Amino acid sequence: MKPVCLVIGAGAGIGGTVGARFAQGGYHAVLCRRSDEDGLQKLGAAIEAAGGSASGYLLDATKPDLLEERIAAVESEHGPIEVLVYNLGAQIGDRGLAETDHRVFERCWRLGTFGLYRAATVLCPLMAERGKGTILVTSATAAVRGNAGQHAHAAAMGGRRMLCQTLNAEFASKGIHVAHVLIDGAVDAPDTLGKMLGPELFEKLRQERGLDHDGLLLPREVAETYFHLAQQHRSAWTHELDLRAFSDIAWWNHP
Amino acid sequence: MKPVCLVIGAGAGIGGTVGARFAQGGYHAVLCRRSDEDGLQKLGAAIEAAGGSASGYLLDATKPDLLEERIAAVESEHGPIEVLVYNLGAQIGDRGLAETDHRVFERCWRLGTFGLYRAATVLCPLMAERGKGTILVTSATAAVRGNAGQHAHAAAMGGRRMLCQTLNAEFASKGIHVAHVLIDGAVDAPDTLGKMLGPELFEKLRQERGLDHDGLLLPREVAETYFHLAQQHRSAWTHELDLRAFSDIAWWNHP
Amino acid sequence: MKPVCLVIGAGAGIGGTVGARFAQGGYHAVLCRRSDEDGLQKLGAAIEAAGGSASGYLLDATKPDLLEERIAAVESEHGPIEVLVYNLGAQIGDRGLAETDHRVFERCWRLGTFGLYRAATVLCPLMAERGKGTILVTSATAAVRGNAGQHAHAAAMGGRRMLCQTLNAEFASKGIHVAHVLIDGAVDAPDTLGKMLGPELFEKLRQERGLDHDGLLLPREVAETYFHLAQQHRSAWTHELDLRAFSDIAWWNHP
Amino acid sequence: MKPVCLVIGAGAGIGGTVGARFAQGGYHAVLCRRSDEDGLQKLGAAIEAAGGSASGYLLDATKPDLLEERIAAVESEHGPIEVLVYNLGAQIGDRGLAETDHRVFERCWRLGTFGLYRAATVLCPLMAERGKGTILVTSATAAVRGNAGQHAHAAAMGGRRMLCQTLNAEFASKGIHVAHVLIDGAVDAPDTLGKMLGPELFEKLRQERGLDHDGLLLPREVAETYFHLAQQHRSAWTHELDLRAFSDIAWWNHP
Repeated sequence: MKPVCLVIGAGAGIGGTVGARFAQGGYHAVLCRRSDEDGLQKLGAAIEAAGGSASGYLLDATKPDLLEERIAAVESEHGPIEVLVYNLGAQIGDRGLAETDHRVFERCWRLGTFGLYRAATVLCPLMAERGKGTILVTSATAAVRGNAGQHAHAAAMGGRRMLCQTLNAEFASKGIHVAHVLIDGAVDAPDTLGKMLGPELFEKLRQERGLDHDGLLLPREVAETYFHLAQQHRSAWTHELDLRAFSDIAWWNHP
Repeated sequence: MKPVCLVIGAGAGIGGTVGARFAQGGYHAVLCRRSDEDGLQKLGAAIEAAGGSASGYLLDATKPDLLEERIAAVESEHGPIEVLVYNLGAQIGDRGLAETDHRVFERCWRLGTFGLYRAATVLCPLMAERGKGTILVTSATAAVRGNAGQHAHAAAMGGRRMLCQTLNAEFASKGIHVAHVLIDGAVDAPDTLGKMLGPELFEKLRQERGLDHDGLLLPREVAETYFHLAQQHRSAWTHELDLRAFSDIAWWNHP
Repeated sequence: MKPVCLVIGAGAGIGGTVGARFAQGGYHAVLCRRSDEDGLQKLGAAIEAAGGSASGYLLDATKPDLLEERIAAVESEHGPIEVLVYNLGAQIGDRGLAETDHRVFERCWRLGTFGLYRAATVLCPLMAERGKGTILVTSATAAVRGNAGQHAHAAAMGGRRMLCQTLNAEFASKGIHVAHVLIDGAVDAPDTLGKMLGPELFEKLRQERGLDHDGLLLPREVAETYFHLAQQHRSAWTHELDLRAFSDIAWWNHP
Repeated sequence: MKPVCLVIGAGAGIGGTVGARFAQGGYHAVLCRRSDEDGLQKLGAAIEAAGGSASGYLLDATKPDLLEERIAAVESEHGPIEVLVYNLGAQIGDRGLAETDHRVFERCWRLGTFGLYRAATVLCPLMAERGKGTILVTSATAAVRGNAGQHAHAAAMGGRRMLCQTLNAEFASKGIHVAHVLIDGAVDAPDTLGKMLGPELFEKLRQERGLDHDGLLLPREVAETYFHLAQQHRSAWTHELDLRAFSDIAWWNHP
């Protein structure tokens, strides 16, 4: 039986592509996303066409119990989850405090922070008992600096980063590798950036970033580093790293 | 009419003492805490005995609307809030992930992150209209590193730190000074550390930390820096600083 | 005899103004700078006209032994140095790697890092024996992020920040308070920014930053925080803080 | 002709092992170290026995011009340097300020900071002209926090980290990938840790860290991540990451 890589937040950007990379590397990819059954089917079909194996489920991780139940079902139907890719977040674009209502603020936390805590609560005991497991968390520079208009997103990401550290502090010595991946720049992802910008602006941005768009973070290249992280030997684990396109300015630099 | 300093979380440690320091400096101190009417009365009486002026209210900041209503009432009864001291948190001691249930995790967030967002949502528009205001947020090193057993606390504090940055990013240029104060060490505070340790261990710790306990963070000395922050001219504002006793090891150093 | 505040780098910006603030607060200010005897005289005269006391010396801190000899002479002529303000640096403006020759790179280190180490080597044993002392180090955001064109400056400042931490780690418990002050923004300082920009551009910038220029860091307001740091009780010391004008964007935020 | 990987500081720990990993991956490894001609020969022989290719040179990088001349000679004799591994440092163990003399402080800077600047000054123009190149810098947590007794080492590493950022800021968009690798923990390296501890203590530590010593950072596993960094596509580059053994406590956590 193949080891399982469970992706929570498997859209047509980093999440789905990381799932495909693990499938290519010998894992059974279990892909979960909130909506778009059609997109989910296509992603699974593409993985299988490439010789990999995958399953897909729609999942609203903000609903009580669904996340926990899905993890339990995956373990019993597909086998031990060796890698969890937690790829949920709610980057809703810039909005001032007056436009950030309670519902939005709380939703960002439920997706960004609370969902990871819930997943870890169910998975870490299983992984600890098995003496191994990997949790890869897609993050953003909003986890290390709070820009204007990012109240809800930055608060969720900042909490999530600390949670990754507390999980690492409790579980690393039990064989669980937690890694926090700071995505620092625009991603060539139609489901997230594409939807935020709209199709025209998104295509314009892609053209501006070079012939092969590699001035954007290309999901297939991002996925290589996710895969590497999961292969690191336990004597040399990375807890945090950043990723950005060569032509982008790092978040700590002035443009 | 005196300018108002509103303290949310005015126990017999940093919160109450900071309130007293502002009262001594010419502010009307409005003290809010969740429980202990008696302690609240004593604090107010002590401030008045020292020649200052104060009001006190019991307030459960996790309940819907109460925080917002209290802020509105303070503004109408006592005048413009010039300084908000947000001093709530839920340091519940170390507990493993298995002992950190949903209720605890969410409560830490409600006190540590969501409450500050709610207070800011009400206060920032008022302060921005007046072109001035100060928000002082008591924080902990859990905002910058996640230790084992601190899942709920660190996630809340990490989110809060980013929120302080997003508030600063939106409101500094409108005259609102947001400062994030990293308390890095044990505080000589009977209401928080005292209760966590119990009276005997707390007294033992005090004795170990020197004749006048100044190997602990003394709230009256911490309060001096809070007061200084609120007096900084807008040409030279501090957004973040740390505070620790001289004999303590900084959080980033090995013991 | 008054306690002594020794300022290394006492130009007509932060250094000299901090010296004046300490003189006003009861210290004897000893002002050292590399050149401009005339400026030094004026600064001392202004301090004395305001009722304070001051001495001034020209000092090239990159020359062997001169710094050490000056510290020894100040101790024997003016009394124990209670506060050292280390205000030297070499912000030489942006220049590419090709334009950053060995001499420049080394000079930045000699001023920015090595000079502080030399001063500490002489002063810390004296302060430790007396059980008290304060070392205030003016720093820049180049100490926490390296921008393009800042190879020499950032390398020096980054080393200096770590040195401040190692000094604090060794000497805080012996009563020496080391504080690292991150100046994050343009300072209204004719001797440094003024010379870098030239008089016309400098005046233009001042006008743009508001009627009283308080969109720039005003040295007299910066000096208030330096003075506060030196008055902090040893139970509540700050090791690091940032300072910027309200209308400036924090270094970690995008414009 | 194979692409060249030049290792400055190729002892029997991270440096030499990284060189061997690149040789195994198709690079010609050029190994430089200050002394031990015999060790250098053995390292090269082992690489060749494993089917790789390597050259070795003794090099004192603190001497004027030698580093620059070696880089030029490697380029003309072995071809374009595609990867530079800068692995020099001077972790001399803990020593108080009184025991850190001028010579030691300056030497740490010459090895840790100035040498990297010198190498970059020669290499970056060549790499920029070719539109590609990778500079991997072995670093330590002393680059991000200054512990007691680490005055010279931390000052050098802190400067070096900022230099890596300024190099990245200037050269990333020209195709040069600069990565700063924070080694956070004891390395199973006889030439550095082994010499610092002495053979007996070193062997004792190894035994304590598990049957296969993987509670220490194993150089061959560290080397996997170095190699991965050099293979990252330019659309998804990492500038900084940490590495530690699973059973070690991260530098930001309390033990």
